[in-house]
Amino acid sequence: MSLLVVGSIALDDIETPTTTRTNVLGGSSVFFSYAASFFTDVQLVGVVGEDWPQEHTEMLEARGIDTSGLDIQEGGKTFRWRGKYRTNMNDRDTLEVHLNVLEKFSPQLSEQAKRTPYLFLANGSPQTQLDVLSQAGGPELVVADTMDLWIETQRDELNTLMKKLDGLVLNDSEAKLLCDTENLVEAGQQILKMGPKFVVLKKGEHGAMFFSEHEVYVLPAFPTPDVNDPTGAGDSFAGGMMGYLAEQKNYEPVTLKKALAYGTVLASYTVEDFSLDQLKKINRNELDSRFKAYQQMLTF
Amino acid sequence: MSLLVVGSIALDDIETPTTTRTNVLGGSSVFFSYAASFFTDVQLVGVVGEDWPQEHTEMLEARGIDTSGLDIQEGGKTFRWRGKYRTNMNDRDTLEVHLNVLEKFSPQLSEQAKRTPYLFLANGSPQTQLDVLSQAGGPELVVADTMDLWIETQRDELNTLMKKLDGLVLNDSEAKLLCDTENLVEAGQQILKMGPKFVVLKKGEHGAMFFSEHEVYVLPAFPTPDVNDPTGAGDSFAGGMMGYLAEQKNYEPVTLKKALAYGTVLASYTVEDFSLDQLKKINRNELDSRFKAYQQMLTF
Repeated sequence: MSLLVVGSIALDDIETPTTTRTNVLGGSSVFFSYAASFFTDVQLVGVVGEDWPQEHTEMLEARGIDTSGLDIQEGGKTFRWRGKYRTNMNDRDTLEVHLNVLEKFSPQLSEQAKRTPYLFLANGSPQTQLDVLSQAGGPELVVADTMDLWIETQRDELNTLMKKLDGLVLNDSEAKLLCDTENLVEAGQQILKMGPKFVVLKKGEHGAMFFSEHEVYVLPAFPTPDVNDPTGAGDSFAGGMMGYLAEQKNYEPVTLKKALAYGTVLASYTVEDFSLDQLKKINRNELDSRFKAYQQMLTF
Repeated sequence: MSLLVVGSIALDDIETPTTTRTNVLGGSSVFFSYAASFFTDVQLVGVVGEDWPQEHTEMLEARGIDTSGLDIQEGGKTFRWRGKYRTNMNDRDTLEVHLNVLEKFSPQLSEQAKRTPYLFLANGSPQTQLDVLSQAGGPELVVADTMDLWIETQRDELNTLMKKLDGLVLNDSEAKLLCDTENLVEAGQQILKMGPKFVVLKKGEHGAMFFSEHEVYVLPAFPTPDVNDPTGAGDSFAGGMMGYLAEQKNYEPVTLKKALAYGTVLASYTVEDFSLDQLKKINRNELDSRFKAYQQMLTF
């Protein structure tokens, strides 16, 4: 089943305690769509500037990702993020952000995009997310991500959005902010009452929690010793999750749990190298092997 | 199979964001032995003062815990700890510590205690732990806990101890301190090289990690919305783990993983109320039900 993602595309400069990499491909919709492309056809909607290297488009196309929704703005510059990870590799400081073309981005869905059955609204303002959702012709499954900035500055729009969602994916710190509690179980249950049918709390190196009316569960991260760059891990997680659901053509509880597990495994690859570098090295067989190892790890 | 624990016994004053409780029963060997008593006979070795309420001894005895190793020192006062939890309920500040009788405690094992097949050296100085170990007549399985204080002040003794251990149980922050790394997978693997055949890293609300020569795995905490007092969760975890191993009379990898899962479930009960209050309310059937729910939670 086809999956559409609308979100940011970035060129990142990343500093870790051991390495600095500049001008690497990033952005929520890029990590998302690459991870999802292990499972299904993906359409990507996003904006870049004229500094955008054509090779990135070719690489995405070669993965079967439909980039016809990529808006290349002449005279504009691609969104840029510069960040530095602390020694724990979990916390990071943003050193520079240049929104550039992203600042006035108003996504327009093509006729084909409007018919997508599965829609992921990657991180963007709730206002923009609502606008995209209003263009789509009633997708079967709509899941969105959000972040602290929008919780603080567009709470009303976010509240409106949440009532229209099947699922909301957000970080633990964002859930705490949204609910004004330090207890994640409580936070997850509170967010359910705000509208989404299910909530996924991403806890970084500590895995993810799932909440729905009848279920609460936690899945740990897959323990990899090679953590080199966590950028994009959360978006890869979401991409793996949504990609698997689209492949399975359903979002029953049993499928959803497997989808979270696939998301977890994809995130574990993403952190092993910069940008998409590790994801590019693996194929579906390797992904499935790690999935089985993960399943085995949790069997007792 | 019989299990011996040597460790602290305390009377605690605990402040949480919502409640203050004074003079409640605590201490590593108390939580440990109560949790272990769901599975097996336990002998407790520890010291208290003349302020020790006899009712606590009776309560432990009623659980089948052998308290003949309880040293009640006339004229002495029981170890006291006063602590305050922050709003996240995971971090805490120690407001007062009075070692009292614990300061000069030099545990003496009875003839029966010396023959224990399973030995747990709960938190205490590595020097004391080594001394206890030298008294024991070659137990089959020896597992110890340690803490930041000893990592910082008795590193040589701790190094000697680690070479004699089957297992070491410690908190994530302590593992990072011991190995001077923020990467827990790396830390666990480094500690293995220091001597223990297996290492268990406790991550509080994020569960536990296990390391041995051929295995690395993570088990999440059981998600309970009712976190009222985390004191003793780590010791209950260790008690559940060791108790289950003693019940099963083996510590094969498959048994060890189940033991960690039982430890996780016991810890989830402990945090739901102060002191042993929640553990006192449950029986083995309820424990097994939550164990099965936990197993189910991790099945996909």
